[in-house]
Amino acid sequence: MVSVQLISLLEPIRPQIERVEGLVDEKLAAVEEPLQTMLRRSVGGGKHLRPALIILIGQMFAVPLEPFHRLAAAVDMLHAATLIHDDLVDRSALRRGRETLHTIWPAGATVLAGDYLLGQATLLIAELEHPPVCKVFADVLCTMCAGEIRRMLSAQDAPERWQDYYRGIEAKTASLFAASAEMAAILAGAEASQRTALCCFARELGIAFQIVDDVLDLTGNEVLLGKPQGSDLRQGLLTLPILYYLESRANPNPVSTVLAGQRDEAQVRAAIEAVCASEAIEAALQEASNHVRCGQEALATLPDNESCRLLGSLAAYVVERER
Amino acid sequence: MVSVQLISLLEPIRPQIERVEGLVDEKLAAVEEPLQTMLRRSVGGGKHLRPALIILIGQMFAVPLEPFHRLAAAVDMLHAATLIHDDLVDRSALRRGRETLHTIWPAGATVLAGDYLLGQATLLIAELEHPPVCKVFADVLCTMCAGEIRRMLSAQDAPERWQDYYRGIEAKTASLFAASAEMAAILAGAEASQRTALCCFARELGIAFQIVDDVLDLTGNEVLLGKPQGSDLRQGLLTLPILYYLESRANPNPVSTVLAGQRDEAQVRAAIEAVCASEAIEAALQEASNHVRCGQEALATLPDNESCRLLGSLAAYVVERER
Repeated sequence: MVSVQLISLLEPIRPQIERVEGLVDEKLAAVEEPLQTMLRRSVGGGKHLRPALIILIGQMFAVPLEPFHRLAAAVDMLHAATLIHDDLVDRSALRRGRETLHTIWPAGATVLAGDYLLGQATLLIAELEHPPVCKVFADVLCTMCAGEIRRMLSAQDAPERWQDYYRGIEAKTASLFAASAEMAAILAGAEASQRTALCCFARELGIAFQIVDDVLDLTGNEVLLGKPQGSDLRQGLLTLPILYYLESRANPNPVSTVLAGQRDEAQVRAAIEAVCASEAIEAALQEASNHVRCGQEALATLPDNESCRLLGSLAAYVVERER
Repeated sequence: MVSVQLISLLEPIRPQIERVEGLVDEKLAAVEEPLQTMLRRSVGGGKHLRPALIILIGQMFAVPLEPFHRLAAAVDMLHAATLIHDDLVDRSALRRGRETLHTIWPAGATVLAGDYLLGQATLLIAELEHPPVCKVFADVLCTMCAGEIRRMLSAQDAPERWQDYYRGIEAKTASLFAASAEMAAILAGAEASQRTALCCFARELGIAFQIVDDVLDLTGNEVLLGKPQGSDLRQGLLTLPILYYLESRANPNPVSTVLAGQRDEAQVRAAIEAVCASEAIEAALQEASNHVRCGQEALATLPDNESCRLLGSLAAYVVERER
């Protein structure tokens, strides 16, 4: 039996989330060592938002949940695989308070461990025996990879940096939320209009989640973050609060100095404090709230039951979690 | 219209192979830059053995070939994706006479380009709308990754080095040949016994192909190889001719010296010459011939038509190609 840490909001679906983690655990238990140890470091944990989204959609349509467990496990594994590769690509040392795989194992083994997880995720999807679900799954993998490559290879001082930010969080986060909802809606036999509404809800939820994540990277507690404060800034990533800050300040300012390459600890700290003391944080959170509201409006067209209401609360939680 | 280089044996199925390459080309044409350029460097070329295997199985059962084109394109893309990651992992600078992707682009973009190709390959498989095929596809991806990780992380001086070699070529090459045949046999509606026979044939073909590749790495012309002679030896890889050589010689010898870390050019050349002048090359080729014969015997249970005979000739070619 797998015991998971859950936000209280998700307690009503604890057995379902535990079943998802149990499925992942079963798959990992069959993997030979040392690969199994590598994968166990990388899978699981987190806030279980994507599995919750999938399970709640299954419950909303009152269909048998077994395929939804499998789908959620596949999405968890796909997500973990992309994080393994992204952390390697970005040279991030910590994730959820733990050392990332590539800091412990050779880069090559890390690449292949991510590939293996992609294979296992694809196998779970294939076991659903539902080709349209498989298409959405493959498609979102392509979207996520293409988005990351675009981000890596695009010039940081491009004039379209706001647009780049939104395209980036769409590819990195919103696309997988939307695909999770779409696959669940297909499995649930939802009508086309309901599928669209669920995709729209999940996409807005994903955007809001990523914006709040980007805010927390600056305002959050390092212990809760599980990584150093200001990781994005240290990597030169332009997130929404940073963009709001830069828009309202003349150059040079503490943030532009860091982005220009001055990255000693005192300067990074000064930049973080400058953004946190500005109106940029509130502006970014307001924008996240707007996305949540749009998402909640999309839910209005769906079956009005407890699962649907829980989805709405989940969206609210995403923004409220640190306020 | 895509024009491909083919060995003369495959001329009868040129239109089919060109259709496969055309499908790959269509998929790539839709990819944004610079990713498209990256992928075009990596896909296509080679000897077209896997696509030929798939097409010939389709023809053998006289079924419509369109799904086989799609399957062959997917296998080509999967193969290219694994080569991108393997070349990065092994730090190989050349492949088929061209600089490998990671020598031109950042390692991170190279990882993600491989992931993207995996996604595109999965999408082609999903479009077949045939879940059993998708399962074999996902399964072989896992097998290949697990095999590579095992090879990377295993000690070179392990007592089981012969066994490690066979497990390695099974995971790296034979598994994808066998999976290609299995997927084609499923699509063709072959009976279980025919599926088994085709898998067996393809696995033996794959083993023979890899053994001959490992021999050519030592005996081949660098221009035809498209990479430096003795690449495996330079990387410290124990291939079959090297194992035969080491088995018959006392230590130290020119090869053991290189494997112990003495890798200047003169020593590598001396080691290559020593193996080439020994009986190890013939012993390895003889072993490849044995695998081809086993594979050809498996064909005896299949429909005796032109496609089946062409498969048999293809197997013979694999060993004869450089003799």
